[in-house]
Amino acid sequence: MKCLVLDEKMDYDGSQISSLWAYNLEDIQEDSIIAFRGVCDVKIEHMIDLEDKKQGDIIFSTDMIHFIIEHFDSSDLKLIYSRQRLFTAIVKEVLSEYHNDIVRQGDDLFVNGKKLTVSIASTSAVSQKIHFGINVVHDFYGSFEDLGLGNDDVAGLMDKIAKRYYNEFIDIEKDLRKSRPLDVI
Amino acid sequence: MKCLVLDEKMDYDGSQISSLWAYNLEDIQEDSIIAFRGVCDVKIEHMIDLEDKKQGDIIFSTDMIHFIIEHFDSSDLKLIYSRQRLFTAIVKEVLSEYHNDIVRQGDDLFVNGKKLTVSIASTSAVSQKIHFGINVVHDFYGSFEDLGLGNDDVAGLMDKIAKRYYNEFIDIEKDLRKSRPLDVI
Amino acid sequence: MKCLVLDEKMDYDGSQISSLWAYNLEDIQEDSIIAFRGVCDVKIEHMIDLEDKKQGDIIFSTDMIHFIIEHFDSSDLKLIYSRQRLFTAIVKEVLSEYHNDIVRQGDDLFVNGKKLTVSIASTSAVSQKIHFGINVVHDFYGSFEDLGLGNDDVAGLMDKIAKRYYNEFIDIEKDLRKSRPLDVI
Amino acid sequence: MKCLVLDEKMDYDGSQISSLWAYNLEDIQEDSIIAFRGVCDVKIEHMIDLEDKKQGDIIFSTDMIHFIIEHFDSSDLKLIYSRQRLFTAIVKEVLSEYHNDIVRQGDDLFVNGKKLTVSIASTSAVSQKIHFGINVVHDFYGSFEDLGLGNDDVAGLMDKIAKRYYNEFIDIEKDLRKSRPLDVI
Amino acid sequence: MKCLVLDEKMDYDGSQISSLWAYNLEDIQEDSIIAFRGVCDVKIEHMIDLEDKKQGDIIFSTDMIHFIIEHFDSSDLKLIYSRQRLFTAIVKEVLSEYHNDIVRQGDDLFVNGKKLTVSIASTSAVSQKIHFGINVVHDFYGSFEDLGLGNDDVAGLMDKIAKRYYNEFIDIEKDLRKSRPLDVI
Amino acid sequence: MKCLVLDEKMDYDGSQISSLWAYNLEDIQEDSIIAFRGVCDVKIEHMIDLEDKKQGDIIFSTDMIHFIIEHFDSSDLKLIYSRQRLFTAIVKEVLSEYHNDIVRQGDDLFVNGKKLTVSIASTSAVSQKIHFGINVVHDFYGSFEDLGLGNDDVAGLMDKIAKRYYNEFIDIEKDLRKSRPLDVI
Repeated sequence: MKCLVLDEKMDYDGSQISSLWAYNLEDIQEDSIIAFRGVCDVKIEHMIDLEDKKQGDIIFSTDMIHFIIEHFDSSDLKLIYSRQRLFTAIVKEVLSEYHNDIVRQGDDLFVNGKKLTVSIASTSAVSQKIHFGINVVHDFYGSFEDLGLGNDDVAGLMDKIAKRYYNEFIDIEKDLRKSRPLDVI
Repeated sequence: MKCLVLDEKMDYDGSQISSLWAYNLEDIQEDSIIAFRGVCDVKIEHMIDLEDKKQGDIIFSTDMIHFIIEHFDSSDLKLIYSRQRLFTAIVKEVLSEYHNDIVRQGDDLFVNGKKLTVSIASTSAVSQKIHFGINVVHDFYGSFEDLGLGNDDVAGLMDKIAKRYYNEFIDIEKDLRKSRPLDVI
Repeated sequence: MKCLVLDEKMDYDGSQISSLWAYNLEDIQEDSIIAFRGVCDVKIEHMIDLEDKKQGDIIFSTDMIHFIIEHFDSSDLKLIYSRQRLFTAIVKEVLSEYHNDIVRQGDDLFVNGKKLTVSIASTSAVSQKIHFGINVVHDFYGSFEDLGLGNDDVAGLMDKIAKRYYNEFIDIEKDLRKSRPLDVI
Repeated sequence: MKCLVLDEKMDYDGSQISSLWAYNLEDIQEDSIIAFRGVCDVKIEHMIDLEDKKQGDIIFSTDMIHFIIEHFDSSDLKLIYSRQRLFTAIVKEVLSEYHNDIVRQGDDLFVNGKKLTVSIASTSAVSQKIHFGINVVHDFYGSFEDLGLGNDDVAGLMDKIAKRYYNEFIDIEKDLRKSRPLDVI
Repeated sequence: MKCLVLDEKMDYDGSQISSLWAYNLEDIQEDSIIAFRGVCDVKIEHMIDLEDKKQGDIIFSTDMIHFIIEHFDSSDLKLIYSRQRLFTAIVKEVLSEYHNDIVRQGDDLFVNGKKLTVSIASTSAVSQKIHFGINVVHDFYGSFEDLGLGNDDVAGLMDKIAKRYYNEFIDIEKDLRKSRPLDVI
Repeated sequence: MKCLVLDEKMDYDGSQISSLWAYNLEDIQEDSIIAFRGVCDVKIEHMIDLEDKKQGDIIFSTDMIHFIIEHFDSSDLKLIYSRQRLFTAIVKEVLSEYHNDIVRQGDDLFVNGKKLTVSIASTSAVSQKIHFGINVVHDFYGSFEDLGLGNDDVAGLMDKIAKRYYNEFIDIEKDLRKSRPLDVI
């Protein structure tokens, strides 16, 4: 698995959730987690969550850090959703080192009752993907500011979160290779 | 999915990780999470983790709360391990409401540097299972006592943790039924 | 699983076989069977069966009852086709309570040598679906009239057939949760 | 797929449900349906259905026709249970040519309110199997006698039922090879 | 499985890699390998390999023999890629009967250091496919001429290679139906 | 994936085909290919191929090189059998550098009409495995001697073959991560 934090800023318009984006961007031929910072402005044609689409939701934020995860080992929806929730819990664990009262509800994180994150997961015929975005600043929703985090903390957090997921994945892959099958009553 | 907290105490000897234990115990014909309290004393023939078996580990605790999760929707090792890590993160989230410095490393929780939990996951040809145990008291390892939790808190916590996983599972099942497939670059 | 019989009429133009139609229509976030009554007029771009498409078949009927089944638990073609045949057999069982000589050939039902039904099944990356239509009246093909069934029977039959499949599904899910794996010679 | 009706009688003791029985018996290296006639006397160690095992059920009949189906294309429990229900519906369709009021409830057939059949399905790591037995004569349960069928009809029915499943399977395999994937709303 | 060698020439423009091409062409409702001879000129919109697409590669050859393989038994990328490599090895085995120094690197064959073949594999929601092309003549790349093979050898080789894969597939399907599951340490 | 050639000799008695043998031996928590040299004497209880078992075959050779491959990414029989055939073709490619007329038939290699190798593949609920053995010397069957290879060549060949499979696996994993899904006719 490849863990990559982009130096340059890049906007998230929803096309990055497409399968094979990582290969197209950086010739990555492994499973991957890629972090970058930029505007979030999801075009309607890239909306994966039909609830957003139906409600004509605007998914917009002027400054977010984004994580794009891609796995090619399965096209099982249940697996990618479990991984999405696990990733959300990991983000909460990292951010809780800075602020005590972060609340997770499914794939959403909240601070002081304000929504801090957006996320979606799905699959194509060839890969599974997760997008996860966290507001750096926001007038209405929660953001790094509510956590007492400033501009100088952003790069470090992108790195820390991406590496935490990378390590969790490696650790899972190792653990499942030393367990024998279950007995049956 | 069935969520059940047993009133009576029951010892965990490792046979409860076997597939179909829930059916045998309570005629449960759903996916399930069952919580109970009792001694933990895993017999060598029930050890699923070969690392424990090789090292001749003793998995023993005089008083634990146990969670047994069974899913019949897949026999994919990657899925049950993702679910195990997610469950571990959920337990951490619940316990963190009582104590600030709980640390998760994979499927283990630590308090004050002391290991608080044991866990294993695997699959048979018919179902996937997770066992997760938390020390209520322990002379050497971490326990509820280190979290400032006493005997009166045990039943409530068993219920809270089991329901949290149950709700997470229901929520995942609903979320994956409103997401369209990914585009491809 | 959700079982729903629509009160209002609705035409079937083939778009209803698309994945996530049930969510779009009624915010359903479960597996589902939805029954409704209306014209059947399948547009060429919605034809799933390439045999129909190649032959330029017209799939048209002025009055049909329609069943749309969606499962999110697998994308295995073999499973959805087995479910389609099972559903066809269920419809035959229900209709045979009204008329003795209904014949099933694969996913087709015949009465007095006249084709009574149309059906298709397939999968996307996120869900499996079945469409099954039965003529209420028809000048050329078989219809409810050939079974001695009139307008007053339609709503009751939609309900009976949908519930029968729903119950079969629930029953299967329960049965597979009490069977141990096979031995091997 | 191989369709085979054994001439000689053979007792069913539950070991025939084991994976690879067909290879062991007749060197069959295809998916298969094998029919034979004989006593049914299932030993407790071969019971797959834990409900029978728990209740100490005796599964015994002095004269039955047996069908053993084995598929190697999947180890999905949902698939083999759908196939079992479809097979049950096929048996009902065949027997209904001789008697009007056969009732199917899941994997059971009833005549005059009396249970006519036994069945189980499960999977190992290498194959899926179904056993289905129909009483030829029985003092208490339903049997061919209740259908007005005698000794002379048995061989013909074994052949007819086995061929009907064989043909259904072939037909499904062909149908799923001409259907394009679903669109998505 | 169907093995078919087309008499008439046909150009390969990349559309033949689409799922269900064999059904559309010849009403084939089995897994299949189809061989034909013709120009190779892959349009950009049919390019499956993003590496080719990124580099604006021209995939062009005036005279090739083409093999199109389609399997409907799985949509696992790992399986179709293993089958592609096995097919490449089979082609090498056949061609090595005519020339000693053919080298295989993944899914490519080389003669005298010159690339002799092109290949791609992928999956849709309904089937897996492989395209494999071998130059008959070529000014720059390797071709049958480098193997000492002329126009008269072409039809025979198309037949030999297609049958070899067909036989390998049949043989695998038989072998996997006589192996018991693994024990576990 | 881990590629390991053991320095010390070890006999193959069939227990090495069991899942998790690599973890037990060397704490390997990756997919793996392990090569070693030793007697081959497969005990009847470790025979995976029922054909051998039925025929009471003796699988014995005083001096063989052995390859044990284990993958945890799937329990699909079709995948492990495709990998077994691919591995057999790889061994042929390597040995053909030393001798011209090696013939592959499925998972067997022959030299001068004499069988040179033994192989089996299967799956448990947790992993897939392949055993492949090549005679170093043999009075009756083919061996390295028939290829003009002596004792000094053995270690080099174990290494070359193991690395070739390792590299093929890595290459496949990379290739499947740059291919977009198929279109559909």
